[in-house]
Amino acid sequence: MQKITKIGIIGKSNKKEAIESALKLAKWLADKGIEVLIDEKLMLKEQKGYSFSPSQDIPSRVQMIVVLGGDGTLLSVARLVGNSGVPVLGVNLGSLGFLTEIALPELFPAIEKVLNGDFRIEKRMSLVAKVIREGKDIGEYLVLNDVVINKGALARIIDLETYIDENYLTTYKADGLIISTPTGSTAYCLSAGGPIVYPTLSSVILIPICPHTLTNRPLILPPEVTIKVILKSEREEVFITLDGQWGFNLLINDIVEIKRAERTLRLIKSPHRSYFEVLRTKLKWGGR
Amino acid sequence: MQKITKIGIIGKSNKKEAIESALKLAKWLADKGIEVLIDEKLMLKEQKGYSFSPSQDIPSRVQMIVVLGGDGTLLSVARLVGNSGVPVLGVNLGSLGFLTEIALPELFPAIEKVLNGDFRIEKRMSLVAKVIREGKDIGEYLVLNDVVINKGALARIIDLETYIDENYLTTYKADGLIISTPTGSTAYCLSAGGPIVYPTLSSVILIPICPHTLTNRPLILPPEVTIKVILKSEREEVFITLDGQWGFNLLINDIVEIKRAERTLRLIKSPHRSYFEVLRTKLKWGGR
Amino acid sequence: MQKITKIGIIGKSNKKEAIESALKLAKWLADKGIEVLIDEKLMLKEQKGYSFSPSQDIPSRVQMIVVLGGDGTLLSVARLVGNSGVPVLGVNLGSLGFLTEIALPELFPAIEKVLNGDFRIEKRMSLVAKVIREGKDIGEYLVLNDVVINKGALARIIDLETYIDENYLTTYKADGLIISTPTGSTAYCLSAGGPIVYPTLSSVILIPICPHTLTNRPLILPPEVTIKVILKSEREEVFITLDGQWGFNLLINDIVEIKRAERTLRLIKSPHRSYFEVLRTKLKWGGR
Amino acid sequence: MQKITKIGIIGKSNKKEAIESALKLAKWLADKGIEVLIDEKLMLKEQKGYSFSPSQDIPSRVQMIVVLGGDGTLLSVARLVGNSGVPVLGVNLGSLGFLTEIALPELFPAIEKVLNGDFRIEKRMSLVAKVIREGKDIGEYLVLNDVVINKGALARIIDLETYIDENYLTTYKADGLIISTPTGSTAYCLSAGGPIVYPTLSSVILIPICPHTLTNRPLILPPEVTIKVILKSEREEVFITLDGQWGFNLLINDIVEIKRAERTLRLIKSPHRSYFEVLRTKLKWGGR
Repeated sequence: MQKITKIGIIGKSNKKEAIESALKLAKWLADKGIEVLIDEKLMLKEQKGYSFSPSQDIPSRVQMIVVLGGDGTLLSVARLVGNSGVPVLGVNLGSLGFLTEIALPELFPAIEKVLNGDFRIEKRMSLVAKVIREGKDIGEYLVLNDVVINKGALARIIDLETYIDENYLTTYKADGLIISTPTGSTAYCLSAGGPIVYPTLSSVILIPICPHTLTNRPLILPPEVTIKVILKSEREEVFITLDGQWGFNLLINDIVEIKRAERTLRLIKSPHRSYFEVLRTKLKWGGR
Repeated sequence: MQKITKIGIIGKSNKKEAIESALKLAKWLADKGIEVLIDEKLMLKEQKGYSFSPSQDIPSRVQMIVVLGGDGTLLSVARLVGNSGVPVLGVNLGSLGFLTEIALPELFPAIEKVLNGDFRIEKRMSLVAKVIREGKDIGEYLVLNDVVINKGALARIIDLETYIDENYLTTYKADGLIISTPTGSTAYCLSAGGPIVYPTLSSVILIPICPHTLTNRPLILPPEVTIKVILKSEREEVFITLDGQWGFNLLINDIVEIKRAERTLRLIKSPHRSYFEVLRTKLKWGGR
Repeated sequence: MQKITKIGIIGKSNKKEAIESALKLAKWLADKGIEVLIDEKLMLKEQKGYSFSPSQDIPSRVQMIVVLGGDGTLLSVARLVGNSGVPVLGVNLGSLGFLTEIALPELFPAIEKVLNGDFRIEKRMSLVAKVIREGKDIGEYLVLNDVVINKGALARIIDLETYIDENYLTTYKADGLIISTPTGSTAYCLSAGGPIVYPTLSSVILIPICPHTLTNRPLILPPEVTIKVILKSEREEVFITLDGQWGFNLLINDIVEIKRAERTLRLIKSPHRSYFEVLRTKLKWGGR
Repeated sequence: MQKITKIGIIGKSNKKEAIESALKLAKWLADKGIEVLIDEKLMLKEQKGYSFSPSQDIPSRVQMIVVLGGDGTLLSVARLVGNSGVPVLGVNLGSLGFLTEIALPELFPAIEKVLNGDFRIEKRMSLVAKVIREGKDIGEYLVLNDVVINKGALARIIDLETYIDENYLTTYKADGLIISTPTGSTAYCLSAGGPIVYPTLSSVILIPICPHTLTNRPLILPPEVTIKVILKSEREEVFITLDGQWGFNLLINDIVEIKRAERTLRLIKSPHRSYFEVLRTKLKWGGR
């Protein structure tokens, strides 16, 4: 990676701590002669000397992005980054996250290391979900964590006819179905009974939510598969949710087609902290 | 139990098979000199010689009710029966149910036996759920299976502060919470990861749906407890569902208070078929 | 309960802390005019002024027993207490236990309260397991937690033909089978995927260990059942273990018959600490 | 693949059906001018006209091996095949297996297709486990399914200190630990609560058996990792088992080091049957 001279800062917009940290970081970077581009939602009008921009324009204008927030904020940024390939550093403002493993007090030493080249890039697989209604594509969505198809709260069990590369898998009768990346395995998947999949292991995870058939275990598939889920329930209210952040209604016979995204997200990681350390802390495994 | 001279028939109203079976059964019973009262929803206008009635009035006018349908139909009848104490015989029109374990071909021999006193009554515990909003009771509901509090499809994880007899239990962070009778343990509970609780064992089952805290295991409590669940999530859409059949929105700080119902449902059972036989068949445990 | 004038002390014999605490407690009780009988395994020769006795003779000679150790020590004492009905107070020397919920620093205030009558007695169901070989009883065992039938480490899956009150349940194909009291539900059962059963809810829990049939869920049965398990595997090495503490080999066609014990163990509990507090701490559920 | 002119036949030696099928197959192949080498354990003395050989010598002398037996028989053959790279076709003599998906009645049509080149080779990852005691290698073992470290039946929970590529993972407190290939995910792993991992997805699966820490979920790792497990329990009896077929005692501080094997097993598969069909049948998922 070439010398970093331009850094973007994106943060959780309604959070005072994100705004304050963004300014401190901007100043610290500017003092080092680095150009800073700040998410305009974090930028108070009266601040001078820094450039700001709508967050969606930042990825194409910088060499690296610092995200100030939680795992949710990083998921949004992953979507913005899309195919640009800009690496991202996640900083948590509250409790340790799987994607934001740098705590606020570690921020400056961590960035110092990054500027000195003491870091590694971890490539995280994303998924693309396409929704097809009556033969027409009605939307295509990029997710870093998961695609969730689930029933409304008052609906009954739904039927999801599922194919892997055109081979019939089964018709899940369940509250819903999660199609997840390894990165997403420690998010909603875990609550639904899934395993922990090491984040750099290219693979796709399929987990039914409260399945009626008790032997419908989580399924881990090769990354190159195409998964096709057809909604077969007519009267029930069903939704698709992308990275737990936004979604919409599905109708009977809607097809959701899920494939690996072409580009991976490039996460900046400390070479000195292992994934297992984060795992032990988040899951309270206890020490030696 | 005294000699049975008056029997009610209630069935799944939109099902042709229920209507046909009801008529056959009515005729068969009338031939034996038994008075029959048929759910008016099953009664075609032109049928003569039988009394009919709105289903809700049947329990108070008969000594026994035959239900033609599935477990769902029986759940509705259980609600109608309420405190009347009338025993109920469940006949499944399709696949074997946990509550409707008599198949259609066994119907006449089974009723013959019942009329001869060759049966046992199994008492099934019910629950009463009361919803309290801003200090006022806004509804009270009787369930034979379960009370489910769960989030809307697009909502995030919800917070449910839970007390057992005024002792703080925990604040579940989950997709929802099931409060179930033993009868309900083989319904939704099973999909949510719960154990099988023998249906006559008085107890209350608490199962979080996709809990964020992985150690939040199902909890089996004594029947005399009062469970209080307070919704603590403000912005999320949350619902309460009763026996999987009807429900409504909950608001922040709504209290759901659940207790054992005073009366039990009296199910008519064959002395010749064990619960375990039903279990083995429904769960495909295989034979010896 | 009448005024307490005679207390027994039993502890984990190879633990220095148990010996020290026993002496301090003995002195403290003697100062209050209470007669103390100490487990001889805790009694150093040179100590004068206290009576000592083999632990098995203590229950019949005192009005109450203080156990110094962990849950394992309390399980052994429960066996000694047997039908005597002497209440037991559990004090943990290390980390909080489900049965030993009093910590060492709380010992004197706790006993003070007990002497003043500020306590409640919680009755815990026990089980009796009888092993029958070729028609003959070869042993009868009392357990407070669980009976475990499991295969040797190099053995394959074993077949356990199981009956509930002479009704065939299923033939488990598994690594083993746990038959547990509610007290035992938070011990081995929990690791094997079982629910948490409130300790005073009379019931029996059946949990297969790593069952081959994935739908073989934990089963919660009424307390009055008789469970009969027949070992059907010939060549595999199989063991029965009682309360995780001792056990022996089973042979093909051996019958293990399990029933509720007639007497319950009487545990002395603080009226000021709820079971749920212990649960939250042990399972790291986090606070409000 | 070049034209097949020499085929080996290995079978379950104590099974009459294996012997009979082997002879029929040998005759059928000989009639087609194919040289046949039969496992001597299947060879009745009086049979003439066929070559026979100890099974361990067969892989180096043929172009393909037909296995007659169950998944267990195929696991043994996988070990014999080792690094030779000879492809293997599994034929089940009883019920459908995950590795032996060809039923006896399909045998001749299936082989016909293979001889005509209508088949695909599926490469299955194997693992190599090395046991190190006091600094010395005491054995190295090849497995297609799994390495299991588990406690003896009367032993208590054991401590297994585990490292991934020299990074500390955790110290499992459990009945044992399974380290499995994707092929092994539908064997013992499934009973221990694991997910289904598509058999060609290179990865290593780590599943604790009845873990004391309830958040110790199954872990799916990249195939290039080295897993190191150190036994930390002194007094308990602990065993290592390889592919569920043979094993031996481990001692305190023994190190088990597990890596992917260099060579993969080459399984001959029908291009007309999907893995998901086998899955649906074996796990009774039901059809559409």
